[in-house]
Amino acid sequence: MGAINGKEFINRINQLNNEVWLDGEKVEGLISNHPAFKGIIQEKAALYDLQLDPNYKSSMTFISPESGDPIGLSYMQPKSKEDLLIRRKMFEQWAKQTSGMMGRSPDYLNTVLMAFASSASFLDGKENCFPQNLITFYKTAREKDLSFTHTFISPQVNRSQVYIENSKEPIAAKIVEVTNEGIVIKGARLLATQGGLTDEVLVFSVGKFLFNEEEAFAFSIPSNTKGLKFICRDTFIGGTSQFDHPLSSRFEEMDTIVVFDHVLVPWDRVFYFNNSEVAEEFVNQSSFHALAKQQVLTRQIVKTEFILGVAQLLTETINVNEYQHIQEKVSEIITGLETMKALLEKAENNASIDEHGVMRPDITPLNVASLIFPKMYPRFTEIVQIIGASGVITIPTEKAFHSSIKLDLEQYLQGATKSAEDRVKIFRLAWDLTMSSFGTRETQYERYFFGDPIRIASDLYKNFPKEQYVNHVSEFLHLKNSL
Amino acid sequence: MGAINGKEFINRINQLNNEVWLDGEKVEGLISNHPAFKGIIQEKAALYDLQLDPNYKSSMTFISPESGDPIGLSYMQPKSKEDLLIRRKMFEQWAKQTSGMMGRSPDYLNTVLMAFASSASFLDGKENCFPQNLITFYKTAREKDLSFTHTFISPQVNRSQVYIENSKEPIAAKIVEVTNEGIVIKGARLLATQGGLTDEVLVFSVGKFLFNEEEAFAFSIPSNTKGLKFICRDTFIGGTSQFDHPLSSRFEEMDTIVVFDHVLVPWDRVFYFNNSEVAEEFVNQSSFHALAKQQVLTRQIVKTEFILGVAQLLTETINVNEYQHIQEKVSEIITGLETMKALLEKAENNASIDEHGVMRPDITPLNVASLIFPKMYPRFTEIVQIIGASGVITIPTEKAFHSSIKLDLEQYLQGATKSAEDRVKIFRLAWDLTMSSFGTRETQYERYFFGDPIRIASDLYKNFPKEQYVNHVSEFLHLKNSL
Amino acid sequence: MGAINGKEFINRINQLNNEVWLDGEKVEGLISNHPAFKGIIQEKAALYDLQLDPNYKSSMTFISPESGDPIGLSYMQPKSKEDLLIRRKMFEQWAKQTSGMMGRSPDYLNTVLMAFASSASFLDGKENCFPQNLITFYKTAREKDLSFTHTFISPQVNRSQVYIENSKEPIAAKIVEVTNEGIVIKGARLLATQGGLTDEVLVFSVGKFLFNEEEAFAFSIPSNTKGLKFICRDTFIGGTSQFDHPLSSRFEEMDTIVVFDHVLVPWDRVFYFNNSEVAEEFVNQSSFHALAKQQVLTRQIVKTEFILGVAQLLTETINVNEYQHIQEKVSEIITGLETMKALLEKAENNASIDEHGVMRPDITPLNVASLIFPKMYPRFTEIVQIIGASGVITIPTEKAFHSSIKLDLEQYLQGATKSAEDRVKIFRLAWDLTMSSFGTRETQYERYFFGDPIRIASDLYKNFPKEQYVNHVSEFLHLKNSL
Amino acid sequence: MGAINGKEFINRINQLNNEVWLDGEKVEGLISNHPAFKGIIQEKAALYDLQLDPNYKSSMTFISPESGDPIGLSYMQPKSKEDLLIRRKMFEQWAKQTSGMMGRSPDYLNTVLMAFASSASFLDGKENCFPQNLITFYKTAREKDLSFTHTFISPQVNRSQVYIENSKEPIAAKIVEVTNEGIVIKGARLLATQGGLTDEVLVFSVGKFLFNEEEAFAFSIPSNTKGLKFICRDTFIGGTSQFDHPLSSRFEEMDTIVVFDHVLVPWDRVFYFNNSEVAEEFVNQSSFHALAKQQVLTRQIVKTEFILGVAQLLTETINVNEYQHIQEKVSEIITGLETMKALLEKAENNASIDEHGVMRPDITPLNVASLIFPKMYPRFTEIVQIIGASGVITIPTEKAFHSSIKLDLEQYLQGATKSAEDRVKIFRLAWDLTMSSFGTRETQYERYFFGDPIRIASDLYKNFPKEQYVNHVSEFLHLKNSL
Repeated sequence: MGAINGKEFINRINQLNNEVWLDGEKVEGLISNHPAFKGIIQEKAALYDLQLDPNYKSSMTFISPESGDPIGLSYMQPKSKEDLLIRRKMFEQWAKQTSGMMGRSPDYLNTVLMAFASSASFLDGKENCFPQNLITFYKTAREKDLSFTHTFISPQVNRSQVYIENSKEPIAAKIVEVTNEGIVIKGARLLATQGGLTDEVLVFSVGKFLFNEEEAFAFSIPSNTKGLKFICRDTFIGGTSQFDHPLSSRFEEMDTIVVFDHVLVPWDRVFYFNNSEVAEEFVNQSSFHALAKQQVLTRQIVKTEFILGVAQLLTETINVNEYQHIQEKVSEIITGLETMKALLEKAENNASIDEHGVMRPDITPLNVASLIFPKMYPRFTEIVQIIGASGVITIPTEKAFHSSIKLDLEQYLQGATKSAEDRVKIFRLAWDLTMSSFGTRETQYERYFFGDPIRIASDLYKNFPKEQYVNHVSEFLHLKNSL
Repeated sequence: MGAINGKEFINRINQLNNEVWLDGEKVEGLISNHPAFKGIIQEKAALYDLQLDPNYKSSMTFISPESGDPIGLSYMQPKSKEDLLIRRKMFEQWAKQTSGMMGRSPDYLNTVLMAFASSASFLDGKENCFPQNLITFYKTAREKDLSFTHTFISPQVNRSQVYIENSKEPIAAKIVEVTNEGIVIKGARLLATQGGLTDEVLVFSVGKFLFNEEEAFAFSIPSNTKGLKFICRDTFIGGTSQFDHPLSSRFEEMDTIVVFDHVLVPWDRVFYFNNSEVAEEFVNQSSFHALAKQQVLTRQIVKTEFILGVAQLLTETINVNEYQHIQEKVSEIITGLETMKALLEKAENNASIDEHGVMRPDITPLNVASLIFPKMYPRFTEIVQIIGASGVITIPTEKAFHSSIKLDLEQYLQGATKSAEDRVKIFRLAWDLTMSSFGTRETQYERYFFGDPIRIASDLYKNFPKEQYVNHVSEFLHLKNSL
Repeated sequence: MGAINGKEFINRINQLNNEVWLDGEKVEGLISNHPAFKGIIQEKAALYDLQLDPNYKSSMTFISPESGDPIGLSYMQPKSKEDLLIRRKMFEQWAKQTSGMMGRSPDYLNTVLMAFASSASFLDGKENCFPQNLITFYKTAREKDLSFTHTFISPQVNRSQVYIENSKEPIAAKIVEVTNEGIVIKGARLLATQGGLTDEVLVFSVGKFLFNEEEAFAFSIPSNTKGLKFICRDTFIGGTSQFDHPLSSRFEEMDTIVVFDHVLVPWDRVFYFNNSEVAEEFVNQSSFHALAKQQVLTRQIVKTEFILGVAQLLTETINVNEYQHIQEKVSEIITGLETMKALLEKAENNASIDEHGVMRPDITPLNVASLIFPKMYPRFTEIVQIIGASGVITIPTEKAFHSSIKLDLEQYLQGATKSAEDRVKIFRLAWDLTMSSFGTRETQYERYFFGDPIRIASDLYKNFPKEQYVNHVSEFLHLKNSL
Repeated sequence: MGAINGKEFINRINQLNNEVWLDGEKVEGLISNHPAFKGIIQEKAALYDLQLDPNYKSSMTFISPESGDPIGLSYMQPKSKEDLLIRRKMFEQWAKQTSGMMGRSPDYLNTVLMAFASSASFLDGKENCFPQNLITFYKTAREKDLSFTHTFISPQVNRSQVYIENSKEPIAAKIVEVTNEGIVIKGARLLATQGGLTDEVLVFSVGKFLFNEEEAFAFSIPSNTKGLKFICRDTFIGGTSQFDHPLSSRFEEMDTIVVFDHVLVPWDRVFYFNNSEVAEEFVNQSSFHALAKQQVLTRQIVKTEFILGVAQLLTETINVNEYQHIQEKVSEIITGLETMKALLEKAENNASIDEHGVMRPDITPLNVASLIFPKMYPRFTEIVQIIGASGVITIPTEKAFHSSIKLDLEQYLQGATKSAEDRVKIFRLAWDLTMSSFGTRETQYERYFFGDPIRIASDLYKNFPKEQYVNHVSEFLHLKNSL
């Protein structure tokens, strides 16, 4: 079948009838009609439509080497630098469609699965590893255009460095039984974005310092697997009016706790289990980081362009663009934007074929970008707030503009270059982007997208090739004993 | 009558029947029952109750020199350093009652009015000035325990440096007529916090670089004066559950645009008009800054203590207090807290009697605090978010804890030292404090409390006595020509 | 005898004939004539003269309770808040005399010794402790106005967390023998400022995570004790011209490695030895931190005033004081200055009598100041450089102003409000303060004055009473289980 | 003749016998023997030698299209992206030879002159402009491998925004006469690095807000032109020992005030005069910024690599590389390095042929790099100081290591992985790089290399194409009236 359109996506999700809990209630009926999920499902559907739109199809799909069907480009394994560029252009299209506000557009996890599958041979011959399952499943997902959420980390019970869970009942998801049919999981994982809104849940073990064997696994299962529950946090949708809530009404993705209540993962879906060494190494040895980060940075760049547009629109609306400190602040956003673009471009330019035959972007500039964007993004939101000043608070509603005080609003809320209605729209957007519950979740999301920033910095330090520079200085000083 | 209790306050506000517009609708019925205002009105009522509570009355009221009635201490004119301390203790009591979350507790504007009245003689003999009206009105307000909102600034249409309004119809509130009865005002003012929820509206002209004569006035009028309208921004109350919205359900104060539609200000309520020189100077020459800032900093200190408590509770809940970077971040809050306390204490210690016989705190440490707190507060909120990490996103609702997934939540959301329910309460508080629409409005409010931070820095530079230090250096260098 | 004058100081130091090594040569002859030490010895002598100057004597000395002689006030044990103020005024006088540039003016170590002696009873009855020696020696020092250097830390060989020295020959100073005469020390200590320029060397063990018993001691010995060597770093004196080097020619204090080559410390000079527990606790339990930091902050405040004077003089010289960003930068210095003053004042106001009967300043504001000044000071130097711009590079010498190109210099280097000569003097001062080898050593000195800033932040976090704030929040949330 | 070697360079400079004043004395004799200039002249000579070294010649020279001689590559006009890369490789070679410490290696001004000449047609037909002179002179310089200093800015007398010089005698260099022979200049210019150490002085008018006609000119004259004087600032050479002063002994470039005492610039050396419009526009319209910044950033990148090497060598020497905060700090340098490299690479990748047929790097990433490096570099130096801690102060001299205390030094100053001698060498390098008078001048030099950072930020803001982003947001919001 290959790449699907929006309607197919919606139908599929509706039919799954996943177990999703929100505000103490199980979601019943068509989830695509539920007020908490309607917006994001429609926005995702629009992405799927775009990939089959005659104007875009050729740049958003490729022909399956097996079925001959058109397949979403994010599923394509890059073999050349040109492939990387083609993929990036595709990421950009989707990111522009959502102004970078959909953190988990399907290309992210499509890429993740493709990257893992492309490095499957790393698992060859290792204990409790099933590389062929991974490859086969990747092909299935690709041909069916499956959509994913994922859960990589355990609940945040106790984050001290020496904590070892000793609860009688599992808290972090664990293998509690191994049977002929497969492995049985009990416990929970955090924090699956769009959990319950996708075909599948991809589960990997990532970033934990010391793995227990029984927490070391990787698999994918359908979202409606028996025993699987998605527990939502509070919704951050402010309301249905796009005037009032231009972003949250459309892009609230929801984050969920994924509960595994004796969930059976059949053997053909298990990629590895009970192998903590593989769990630690596979993520780093595979092309996961390099290929996933290319997608993430592309989206973050588009989002930065959106913020730059908002910031500049604010300055023009109230005519503050002659102030030197305003110019300096907007130039900070420009600097961030250009830096991110340059790092991404460098990673692509310096890509090389890895041991699995995949064209892998250079990881160092990607890691640098992963370190700085989580610091940049909160600053960008602060700049928007500072430019907006009292204006981001002075935000009446759409209904007010259709009431008998309309004339007052039009007179007293006009901007230097804008009608009051346009002005309030712009400031409400600035607010929804940076100050609404939706906006601040975005900030936290970008701040922690790549995990603990302190670990990222340490990893960059450890992995960066510093020897040549140390050697140059040692020679400069004619040191007697080199290191 | 003197100091009122909560019930009297509520009755009075209900009876005023002020014209308040929210979400396109005029508020009808008892405003104290309206979902958008109920919380804040109750919290204010609790403050009034406290001042007559037998356990607190002696430290929260003084005896009127005229009527012999007990009067709220914020109305007392300080004549000694002891008076300043008594006043500060009173501010602290109210601030603790609200954890510093009520920006416009009544003591703020009571103090402002008292300060202006205490400096009324500055207006003696100046054109279009009526110092006696100011003094008389202060006494009336004091004896009746009137409550206030205020509006000091004009709409944010065009903030370029050279902007002169040339709209045919006034935008910024202006005197459009002077009659036998008084002055007639048309136009709007920003951004009256608790507008419509107080007895009176205090209007002064502040901080504008160049006043038009017709925008230079000061007066106070009842909130229900004919032609006066309060147009609310969108509400930031997230809901009525104190579990879900521990702050916004109680402390959302609302900000309003105040529209003057040919409002007549009777002569006995006019303090001055058509005198731009007085408008510029009175605010700076009076004890307004010194006395108001003492109240504001006291509240901000209590708020900082609250944030410190939240930050530390977070670290204990998930057991991260052994991390050096966490310790460093919490110590930033401690540093801010101690600095603010020290500056306030210094201002009080170095207070002196001004030319009007009032004990005026030293303005320099207050100005320093006014410059740094707007930078500290956003950083504090960032620290809370960083400590909270994914926990401030993983926030199910109260209803979820009373549903059939209760056991899952209890198992998977437990904290190292807390039950899941307490843990979620704590993280929801952290969220409501820093990330909900309510929380981010608080951040913006503190960031701009004292106005444009760039102007504050310039004023500090200009007003600080630098000569002695320049002279010391000049002597150190034996410069030939001193400045 | 009591307080000495400058001449007595110089004679005493010259007669000691301490073993001081500079640039590979042993200092011979009168050390007060040596180019590397002449400036600082004269500046110290000027301090001693000041304390006996009839105009100052009464505010800089007190009458010995034993001998009736006038004694330098820094030796006085404070018993009241008034005593603290008297002491602070004395610190200020000396700090102003040196513009805060002498980090080790005698009052610093006089205070340290007095503080230790005042807490001597802490040592009562503890193993290997001799509190009476400490008290007796304090009185000796006080009556003779002895001057001190000190060494508290070990060489920086290996700073990893798990390092244990296993060198065959001691590196860090250790007790290598205990005899009838006393303890014998071998090894080195860092970094004694003014080492070799004082009567005595005070040796304590401070701030090491885990003490070896044989490194845990405290004593004082004369600088000319047999086996004691002071090895100087490179000198940072730029030259003798006060025009060219207004600071380094006068205030370069020198730092030295102190080598103990089997140095015998006689029993009556030993305060404790071989007691690592006491070594760890005495420093923190005694009034050392509280009383020493009062002196240090006083000096740092005076130094900040000096920097403010320099910054402002620069702005006036080239007429940049109308620039908003310049105003903002100078206001940063003002903010720092006022904050330091407020914290010191708060510590004094909230002082209380400790268990030894000494009036001890409140430690919390002092610790806050100790945390922030090391960050402020480098920023102040950066501000001076930014204001100075190319001017701090364009610095011809005094000789150039007395040569045939004098007229060129006078024409082309004139300032807006200053002659070229005065202008260059001012910029050379800015340079010597922040950019010469002397100036950057000052920056490093202030940055590390109180030790590792990360440890200071952790200590502040750990010691600050946070419970009340946590409890307030817990009550606010009605948490079920308190911590 | 074409590219010269080091000996030819030295001979030429010695023969010029330029009028250079240092410390009130005119430099007499061979300038290459003078202690203040010997080091830098030798380092420059080594660069010239390198370009004719058989191992490097092919990558450092090209064949003159006119003479057939080998010419230094920095004189080559780039016509393709490959040319840009060839040029960059050449910059890298020279920068590595000096570890990036020679700010004015000859390639900088060779490039500047080439860039101006390549855009000479901009001057065609404009008043008082002589494009042919510029082209002819470029060819002369290229064929003779002339070396340059330059002066672009006027003395810093009064930097207020409204200052207009009204001194009777010129301060800023001005045309005081126009004769048959040429234009006559009187006054001074700042701050010619290596002034007096080059064949020629290139004079342009740059970056002044409002030009006086008589200050608007461009020309080049030999350094020994009659009436031309170079007045040096104080030297920042610490001494001749490379152990003690590893950088200043070799790379102190000297900065000079250039005095024009009725200097006649012959007509064939005048590029334009009395045309303030051209003065303002030529610099921005030509490829000056794009081509010069490619060279500058290349050198700054190499310098950053050097700092990274020093920082890492420090951490290894005292074994602090396991500390998380140290890792974070070194990773800051890595981040800066990778960012600079990425921006430079992006500028080269996106280069395009300009209207004069020159391959011009994309200016935006270069401008971003020009904005951030001046902020990064001071931070890098701070990181080196923080890692070094007390070690950067504890720096005995080479002579000490050759004296009788040698054994003490070897024992007490050893590092975890280094002998005491190597350890002190490393820390002295860290000191000379960041804390000696030489090092801090480097910091100031990089901080102001591209001029006032506030102006750079404003220019970036103004010139960056923001419209597309504003339009995207406007469409997203369906605004009625676009801007």
